[in-house]
Amino acid sequence: MTAGAFSQTRVVVAGAGFAGLFAAKDLAAKGFAVTVADKRNYHTFFPLLYQVAAAELEPEQIAYPARGVFRSRPNIAFAMAEVTGLDASRRVLTTDAGEIAYDYLLLALGSETNYFGVPGAREHAFGLKTLNEGVALRNHILTCFERAALTADPAARAALLTFTIIGGGATGIEYAGALRELIKGPLTRDYGCAGSCGAKVMLLEAGSRLLPGFGDKLAAYAGERLRRMGVDIRLGAKVTRIEADCVHLDGGEILKTRTAAWTAGVRGPAAAAGFGLELGAGGRLAVTRYLQTPGHPEIFAAGDMAVAAGQPPIPMTAPAAIQEGRQAARNIELLARGEPPEPFAYRDKGVMAVMGRGSAVAGFGRVSLTGLSAWLAWLFVHVAWLIGFRNRLVALSAWAADFFFFERSVRLILPGPGPGGRTGAPGPSDLSGPDRPV
Amino acid sequence: MTAGAFSQTRVVVAGAGFAGLFAAKDLAAKGFAVTVADKRNYHTFFPLLYQVAAAELEPEQIAYPARGVFRSRPNIAFAMAEVTGLDASRRVLTTDAGEIAYDYLLLALGSETNYFGVPGAREHAFGLKTLNEGVALRNHILTCFERAALTADPAARAALLTFTIIGGGATGIEYAGALRELIKGPLTRDYGCAGSCGAKVMLLEAGSRLLPGFGDKLAAYAGERLRRMGVDIRLGAKVTRIEADCVHLDGGEILKTRTAAWTAGVRGPAAAAGFGLELGAGGRLAVTRYLQTPGHPEIFAAGDMAVAAGQPPIPMTAPAAIQEGRQAARNIELLARGEPPEPFAYRDKGVMAVMGRGSAVAGFGRVSLTGLSAWLAWLFVHVAWLIGFRNRLVALSAWAADFFFFERSVRLILPGPGPGGRTGAPGPSDLSGPDRPV
Repeated sequence: MTAGAFSQTRVVVAGAGFAGLFAAKDLAAKGFAVTVADKRNYHTFFPLLYQVAAAELEPEQIAYPARGVFRSRPNIAFAMAEVTGLDASRRVLTTDAGEIAYDYLLLALGSETNYFGVPGAREHAFGLKTLNEGVALRNHILTCFERAALTADPAARAALLTFTIIGGGATGIEYAGALRELIKGPLTRDYGCAGSCGAKVMLLEAGSRLLPGFGDKLAAYAGERLRRMGVDIRLGAKVTRIEADCVHLDGGEILKTRTAAWTAGVRGPAAAAGFGLELGAGGRLAVTRYLQTPGHPEIFAAGDMAVAAGQPPIPMTAPAAIQEGRQAARNIELLARGEPPEPFAYRDKGVMAVMGRGSAVAGFGRVSLTGLSAWLAWLFVHVAWLIGFRNRLVALSAWAADFFFFERSVRLILPGPGPGGRTGAPGPSDLSGPDRPV
Repeated sequence: MTAGAFSQTRVVVAGAGFAGLFAAKDLAAKGFAVTVADKRNYHTFFPLLYQVAAAELEPEQIAYPARGVFRSRPNIAFAMAEVTGLDASRRVLTTDAGEIAYDYLLLALGSETNYFGVPGAREHAFGLKTLNEGVALRNHILTCFERAALTADPAARAALLTFTIIGGGATGIEYAGALRELIKGPLTRDYGCAGSCGAKVMLLEAGSRLLPGFGDKLAAYAGERLRRMGVDIRLGAKVTRIEADCVHLDGGEILKTRTAAWTAGVRGPAAAAGFGLELGAGGRLAVTRYLQTPGHPEIFAAGDMAVAAGQPPIPMTAPAAIQEGRQAARNIELLARGEPPEPFAYRDKGVMAVMGRGSAVAGFGRVSLTGLSAWLAWLFVHVAWLIGFRNRLVALSAWAADFFFFERSVRLILPGPGPGGRTGAPGPSDLSGPDRPV
């Protein structure tokens, strides 16, 4: 088999997240003609998104231009296009920018926030799944402090300065800690104790413990550490309704707050339901142990989007997505060679969550780390992971500055929609007439 | 007179631009009780805004948090509030966050884009006056390249890759040069020559020469330099109408383009008309030679917002705004002491415009610089000007990287409105229910 054997074999990778990115690189290295389609022109380093929402990192520090990632691979084409459907019989992916034909298809569109049908959640809670959402949440929190500074009514002030985080998993834990550090450091310097000491961070978890998937000891350590940082942790607090100015709990308690950050769950992306493929748990695509979709051996799915029926559940994390993406790439290569695919076997690399400067929990098999050692492990893993030399340097120096000087680089309310000007890129379909509030 | 003589004298500064910022610092140093009100929580370093729109600087590199600027001055309070009106009889400024009472008032709300009533301009042209607009224009241009990469129709491709800049003043010149450099360097690397070499940058100037306010020799040099960089300069090109996909010129020519960046003029902000104060040319506030508004000696205006009738026109630049702001602060101090105010005398510090790396024009009185010497002067002045140590370092290193490696730090289509998530801060009045496209 010659080196150029696959140069006419078209593999389309839908999604430039961790699964898609690593699959595309592997497929390109084997010589396939790869097209990566994503509605954004950048890859988001999701594990640090909460730091954007806490004004600790800037958006561009956790995003990397897709064309920059793929520049060194001439056989990867990039298409900024939103996937709208699939015609498996014609082997064509449909997007808002036209059809893309494939011989093999890898679906890796990730997941979206699951509000579990809680009334008002979709309208009033802030998601924390996309760069847009991270910036929106940061802008909102900074705006709450500005509004509170001009509000005389104590009840209105208290609601503005009460921040609820719904969901006690890793993202909720990390965001609660980052928010306390933001308030205690930069915001106290900016607003004085009068403007910030009354601020409350509440972490609402419906279950009886934090950090499902972590050991009991680690979860207890994380909770104790967050409490010492001033986070009000409520276990068994089931949110039943969210309004613009309050969060209702099961049992009748009403928390007056203008901010509900929702980190309580994810589900398959809405597009998945329209593919005509079999769905599994949580609106994700069902896959076999070979990561193929049932009935379509040429269509693979990986990452958050995929769920294997009858297999032990695989966590929806970046390492799992990378492993799945690479296995899917390997199986596409095997099929193209006329060989049978290999089953996917998840290799657990451990769990990590960081509460603040010098404080984290980590579990690697039977080894548990807490405190500074866990934080150093976390720092090392995340820096090593960050894609691209530039991002690695920038993020490291921002962290270093934060660690040594306890100062955030910036606290801007970044551009967003408003009467001051047109905002954002024209969407895929509205280039014909970007609208502008007049 | 004791040091604390003015501690009960309330001076309200409306606007945290160059005039307001420098006035507030001077007034605080004299011991006044100063309140600065701005609808944004940051000062924008406007002279470098075009570099944000050319993906050369990130938004946070030219913005500085107002509370950070004022942190060292305990007698400056900051209010994130949009000025909505004025009740001069009660000496009260009205804002969307309530009333602010003053003894002296400095109005320094800047200017906004003047579309001169050209049909379609407001709807379809991109302004370049605010950070929002700079990010929107950058997003749009990057999106045009992505769309062009997926467009087979040559006419549609050509329209996507034709970028018109309307107005041949300093901002238009600088943006045209920066855009050519963006296309020639990073975008050619990302899209290949096939994707970028056909891109056209057109600079449309209604008058018979570029750079009004600069000497003839400097204007000619700048034009020649831009032409060599590949900018298509059209003098005497009066825009009569703008549509989503074309720009109409006087004489009937129609340019097929999806991008019209409008740098052709400014006027007083819309709010100025509602103050009940005398208006001067271009919707700006009329002021006396003491920068006072006629009939209200306690109300001053400075910067782009102010125009002195019967005086030689003062350019709407940052140095002029700073001088006016400081003179207004000085006159407020004199009035508070019971002394007569001093007339404002503009000290011309010269003019500068930069076309690209190592290339600029500068005029200081009878001294004219072109090329590298002018560019070094420009670099020095702008770096020295940048407010805040951190911004200074970040901007300098980004420039240095650009100069030596010819690489932009990032080329992201930054968060904006779209179906992917809620965007931007809730506005002053909509904290009660941030909306989200569902």
